[in-house]
Amino acid sequence: MTSIREVAKLAQVSMSTVSRALNGSGYVADSTREKIQKAVDELDYVPNKWIRSLYLQKTGIIGVMAPESIHPFFSSLWNCLESEMHENGYNMIVCNTGGEKEIEREYLDTLERNLFDGMIIGTANLPDENYMKINKPILSLDRIIPGLPLVTSDHWQGGCIAAEKLLERGCKNVLQLSALDDNTVASSQSGLAFAKTMQKNGAKVITEGFVWQDVINYTRSIHRAREILTAHPDLDGMMVTDLCAAAFLKTAKEFGISVPGQLKIVAYDGTYITDFNERTISAIEQDVSLLAKTVIKVLIALINNQPLASNRIYVPVHYKAGDTL
Amino acid sequence: MTSIREVAKLAQVSMSTVSRALNGSGYVADSTREKIQKAVDELDYVPNKWIRSLYLQKTGIIGVMAPESIHPFFSSLWNCLESEMHENGYNMIVCNTGGEKEIEREYLDTLERNLFDGMIIGTANLPDENYMKINKPILSLDRIIPGLPLVTSDHWQGGCIAAEKLLERGCKNVLQLSALDDNTVASSQSGLAFAKTMQKNGAKVITEGFVWQDVINYTRSIHRAREILTAHPDLDGMMVTDLCAAAFLKTAKEFGISVPGQLKIVAYDGTYITDFNERTISAIEQDVSLLAKTVIKVLIALINNQPLASNRIYVPVHYKAGDTL
Repeated sequence: MTSIREVAKLAQVSMSTVSRALNGSGYVADSTREKIQKAVDELDYVPNKWIRSLYLQKTGIIGVMAPESIHPFFSSLWNCLESEMHENGYNMIVCNTGGEKEIEREYLDTLERNLFDGMIIGTANLPDENYMKINKPILSLDRIIPGLPLVTSDHWQGGCIAAEKLLERGCKNVLQLSALDDNTVASSQSGLAFAKTMQKNGAKVITEGFVWQDVINYTRSIHRAREILTAHPDLDGMMVTDLCAAAFLKTAKEFGISVPGQLKIVAYDGTYITDFNERTISAIEQDVSLLAKTVIKVLIALINNQPLASNRIYVPVHYKAGDTL
Repeated sequence: MTSIREVAKLAQVSMSTVSRALNGSGYVADSTREKIQKAVDELDYVPNKWIRSLYLQKTGIIGVMAPESIHPFFSSLWNCLESEMHENGYNMIVCNTGGEKEIEREYLDTLERNLFDGMIIGTANLPDENYMKINKPILSLDRIIPGLPLVTSDHWQGGCIAAEKLLERGCKNVLQLSALDDNTVASSQSGLAFAKTMQKNGAKVITEGFVWQDVINYTRSIHRAREILTAHPDLDGMMVTDLCAAAFLKTAKEFGISVPGQLKIVAYDGTYITDFNERTISAIEQDVSLLAKTVIKVLIALINNQPLASNRIYVPVHYKAGDTL
């Protein structure tokens, strides 16, 4: 394979001049440009994107970290992210941690060792310092980490809309699954806003834990739904994530609880899971396409050392009507 | 950052000797190894996996090509593949083509330009020659391409099981969606085996097209399901992919067709979509975990120039009981 070195030699210019000419990244005299083009043609040189990237100290690769990529929210968002990256000349490496801190450390290390030009953090289980000390373009999708740009859905708005919808339908005794005390996670805002709005209007809010492993595993998900519906037979509404909503809908049927008659369900995320269910699940939908566009725009600005208009960007969510409310 | 060059200089050996010692990839005298270790310690040198890979002419990256990564079969398989790759020290780049030939060509080009150590082909829309001419480790998940190893589910077995299940329940007039005439695609074997087994037992098989864009898009999926159930009101059974099965289940409800009373549905793939539906969809389940393990084992053998025991590997599928049969 012809190298940039050979092109430079034949054109009698420096390698950096060839690089500038091919990348359009600086001034090159027209006569020099012609000589380089002639050498490129003569040697049948095809610029190797990767080798060229090395030269520019860029790899064209962005890492995307999450616990799993099977979850419909992540697989939907990753699908849009991959497409946006491709549009912008980047490749996407999937970094699944399975919730393991060691694997997370390993991927952050890979970022610092320059395999990635930048990284998108969809899971963050280490102390803040681990992310703050990284001197590379890095962006968070959910956890609020000092100094790191955050691009996330407007979860506060989402929680408010869900509460208003359930209140309109007369709910007085509702369930929400997110933890109320973690202010460092942007998505917990939906639970906070939901609880606040419900309580302000005289409803009772029951909070139950539903760990990540319960969400993604069908057997565990159904098991938790059964436990919760048994412990709280007087529940009349809930705002829970898509897969939990599907599990509760199924369990309600098993328990002879009519939906939406006795129990109203609003799913959160609104991925295709809510559409492809036998009854469409009413949902707060995150705009994954706009999220992906915004994330890539911000990350590329970081990679190119451009200033950001804002360090925190909130993408609007909206209500998607279904059969469970 | 300390480079391997500085280590070599301090230890007064060649860079390739340092590389051999650090990678354990060839003979290095004990005294030399000690000198290198001393230099490594003194310079606080941490071998950079990526730079080291470059030196070994490997990047540690495997490309995985599919039309989309949102589809539950792909997102489930990709999730397992990423995990297997991580176990084996590889990173996964997602290469979504959206069905575009030009994007596929671009990714094959990226493979040839050495960004990937190997590639897994989950979609293949170019003439065979495009894949056959590639002199890099490459493996197909579905299309049968001369000379390329194939790792796929035993779709023939899957089609037979689905047919036997529907025959046991007395079905006489069934639908299948895959094209019957494409012998170059391993997954079409399920349709062939299904039709053959049904017809041999006196049932009528109706074949209808359902293009990829119809499968992944909810609105189009429901639209096609309505068209098909309107055109064939006497259907009593079907074997269709997971998302189609969910669309048909929903449409049957809308049309007042009882499932499984009047219409029996067997989904193909058996991803979590079939579990998280209000009624569990009976399915032929592909073993994505075993598929991923097998794919990575074969690809790593190819990368390391090891001989393959077989060029075509078929992973067994099994029947997963549900409420629609």
